[in-house]
Amino acid sequence: MYSDLQLTEDRPVYIQVKDYLKRLMLKGGLQPNQKLPSTRELSTLMKVSRSTILLAYAELEDEGLIYALKGKGNYVSELLETPKAEAHWQLDWSAEVSEYAIQAEQYDLMKHGSGAERGEISFTSIAPDEKLFDLHNVKRAFLDRMSLEGEVLLNYGYAQGYKPLMNYLLRYMENKGVDLTGKDILITNGFTEGFDLVLGALRKKTGKALCENPTHHTAIKNLKLHQFQLTGIRMESDGLDLKQLEQELEDSAYDLAYLVPSYHNPTGIVTSPAKRAEIIRLMNEYQVPIIEDGFNEELRYSGSHVSPLIASTGSGNSLVYLGSFSKVLFPGLRVGWIIADAALIDYLESMKRARSIHTSTLDQSLLYQYLSNGNFEKYLKRARMEYKRKYELVVHCLKRYLPMCQISGSGGLHLFVQFPPEIQTRELLIACKAKGVTFTPGDTFYLEPGQGLHTMRLGFSRVSDENIRKGIRTIGETVSNMM
Amino acid sequence: MYSDLQLTEDRPVYIQVKDYLKRLMLKGGLQPNQKLPSTRELSTLMKVSRSTILLAYAELEDEGLIYALKGKGNYVSELLETPKAEAHWQLDWSAEVSEYAIQAEQYDLMKHGSGAERGEISFTSIAPDEKLFDLHNVKRAFLDRMSLEGEVLLNYGYAQGYKPLMNYLLRYMENKGVDLTGKDILITNGFTEGFDLVLGALRKKTGKALCENPTHHTAIKNLKLHQFQLTGIRMESDGLDLKQLEQELEDSAYDLAYLVPSYHNPTGIVTSPAKRAEIIRLMNEYQVPIIEDGFNEELRYSGSHVSPLIASTGSGNSLVYLGSFSKVLFPGLRVGWIIADAALIDYLESMKRARSIHTSTLDQSLLYQYLSNGNFEKYLKRARMEYKRKYELVVHCLKRYLPMCQISGSGGLHLFVQFPPEIQTRELLIACKAKGVTFTPGDTFYLEPGQGLHTMRLGFSRVSDENIRKGIRTIGETVSNMM
Repeated sequence: MYSDLQLTEDRPVYIQVKDYLKRLMLKGGLQPNQKLPSTRELSTLMKVSRSTILLAYAELEDEGLIYALKGKGNYVSELLETPKAEAHWQLDWSAEVSEYAIQAEQYDLMKHGSGAERGEISFTSIAPDEKLFDLHNVKRAFLDRMSLEGEVLLNYGYAQGYKPLMNYLLRYMENKGVDLTGKDILITNGFTEGFDLVLGALRKKTGKALCENPTHHTAIKNLKLHQFQLTGIRMESDGLDLKQLEQELEDSAYDLAYLVPSYHNPTGIVTSPAKRAEIIRLMNEYQVPIIEDGFNEELRYSGSHVSPLIASTGSGNSLVYLGSFSKVLFPGLRVGWIIADAALIDYLESMKRARSIHTSTLDQSLLYQYLSNGNFEKYLKRARMEYKRKYELVVHCLKRYLPMCQISGSGGLHLFVQFPPEIQTRELLIACKAKGVTFTPGDTFYLEPGQGLHTMRLGFSRVSDENIRKGIRTIGETVSNMM
Repeated sequence: MYSDLQLTEDRPVYIQVKDYLKRLMLKGGLQPNQKLPSTRELSTLMKVSRSTILLAYAELEDEGLIYALKGKGNYVSELLETPKAEAHWQLDWSAEVSEYAIQAEQYDLMKHGSGAERGEISFTSIAPDEKLFDLHNVKRAFLDRMSLEGEVLLNYGYAQGYKPLMNYLLRYMENKGVDLTGKDILITNGFTEGFDLVLGALRKKTGKALCENPTHHTAIKNLKLHQFQLTGIRMESDGLDLKQLEQELEDSAYDLAYLVPSYHNPTGIVTSPAKRAEIIRLMNEYQVPIIEDGFNEELRYSGSHVSPLIASTGSGNSLVYLGSFSKVLFPGLRVGWIIADAALIDYLESMKRARSIHTSTLDQSLLYQYLSNGNFEKYLKRARMEYKRKYELVVHCLKRYLPMCQISGSGGLHLFVQFPPEIQTRELLIACKAKGVTFTPGDTFYLEPGQGLHTMRLGFSRVSDENIRKGIRTIGETVSNMM
């Protein structure tokens, strides 16, 4: 006893001593009213300084675990006995969980998808490249904000969001041409929470939803978890197949349409102005609310300026916009936002409060200060330049090593590749993985089994130039062997 | 035009100029291929420096909004036209929202409760006093962690949580006597998200849940939102009325029991060791899983050391523990945790991923670094001393000014007060508010209308000594007038 104390580096020693003794008491190694060794003795046994033991004893006394008798030493208190259950009842949790929990686990691609292994050249990620992060500005923003109102930031905030950030983002959206009349904002833990809240807030009349096919796999997962039956609309090079869209709207009623009009995931397509106008007209006519995913809007490398769809609906209130900087700025800060009709935001705010009270005030205030220090524009310029360079390198390599493929994507952190019909990308992936290269097979993003079998998504943001060349060359060689 | 630029203080001027021009283009005040004023002209019109205009033009060009013709000047680009919807379809969102959204709004006490007004002496809050926060240690922890792995902290993390924090908390729980065999941890956005996830994960067999009556009103809200039918068990001075508990278990089956065994909200009662043992025995016998709320466990002012219930269940797997430091440390950092059977945690992890991807890595890593720097123990000692002093002052004032009342609570940031039957606390509250004093009427925490009409909760953490005296004296005088 005592001499088996094993110190770790990440906590003060006196606390480790305290915890060691506490464990002994809780496990019965030290009994109530038993005398503890003197500080001198214990110091020798544990090979730590006597002042450390003194501090540890003071802590234990403070916690009510020991008491001191003047001139006699320290004794273990009568602990609030921890009754031990006789029967260790074992529940089979797999039989106790809801259908929702089972489906959430089943659709969890992080668990069941083909992740990248260490050392592989991986084109699976579309997270930003952390090497571009301007940490000194993040530190500056943190210290600035802490000096201004540190106490406020660390205590409870408001469900709707941190006011300065809300105002900043409202202005930011106004600058994208959004008419804010009758609208309001809610800050969420990223896009995902925003989408989940909105889906949970909608009354199911038909239980049917429209979306692009292929589309963002996390969105498919969440739509399915909310028990929506999905109708996918084919993607053409300039956006939705409008003929199919109109036909589907003719044939059935829908509760919502989930759309990614700019730098669509996974195809990278930007919906053309003509199609945007027609989509809005149709959704108006058939009265289907749109949920717009503002994903990647900032990452334009070529072509004209892009506005979100919500900029086209004027004072109309049937479009719900979901924004996030996660693909551009810092995804570790879980901050997204919803712009929608004020009456809807009011419901969403109560749902948000019931589910997580509010989004981290620290994340929100740090982001606000970073933005209002003017760092975002500079960062974005640098990031865009770097990603554009990589994007062009990927396009170059694809043309060189995979000349038989069709490429789409004019922005964002990925490209979408269509192979000739004889190449199944799941088979290709197995062969490439054997050579240390991995990517996301495109069928992941399609609604029905058997669709997108000849496609892949290539995320390039976190792959080095050398590995982009090497990786795509490897894919090209593997394809040649297979054909 | 141009001379109406209104500058604000919180953003760099060149960005404000850029945004001003961008708005003009989006709103049609500047047409495609229209020439912009020279930088010199615009500088005069806007009363900002020429270099600011140069920077703004460079930004606009970078965004593809303008183009330069050598020797001729700057022109507005052919914008990706923002089609304007003809029909501004107006949806009545109140008819479109789900039953869940309607109930979330209806049960939202922040909207419908009696909040405190500025200048009032308010006993409604049980948030920690931010004056006690050791901001310098928080800054230190942030800078320490950022230096070690800033890039990692700002990029995507894992749904289960930030590994060093998970390990820290597992050890923390082990030090409270918890047997971790077969168990695992999930980090959540505070207690509330944890509770919401667990309730969503449970399959409804009976749709019935047990809880203390009164109990935490947010928990009541979430149980109701998950459509549980609640059976409340009366509280005695040492915990649940076991006779009633056994009777209810005899009469019906239950899917779960939600319990707050230490410093219960709102009564402040610590369940006795004998009752704890009996509760566990009964729940084992009737096979009802327990959800334990570890709320306030750290804020003991008197009496013996308290272990959580989960320390009594050994290697049993039927108890789900929800932890949080929000009532002690920094609630603005939204970090809580769930300790439960590893199989259940696996489902919860997938649900967490589907709902918010992960908890802010910044919050988690900052908390971890703060804890492992050894700040928590020192902070807790200081906070406990200060809260204990206030707690004793409140008890003293209650005995002096409200001698006719029964008081309960031996820790935490509030006390619970029972008035004689002739005093209705809702009426008392109206009379007190007229004198500038407010508190939470106890019926808020009861399951049925008509219960707890003579009770109130007094939160004291954020009330000054002077206002504690003044406020309780005012309540006392008002009661005397009413009797």
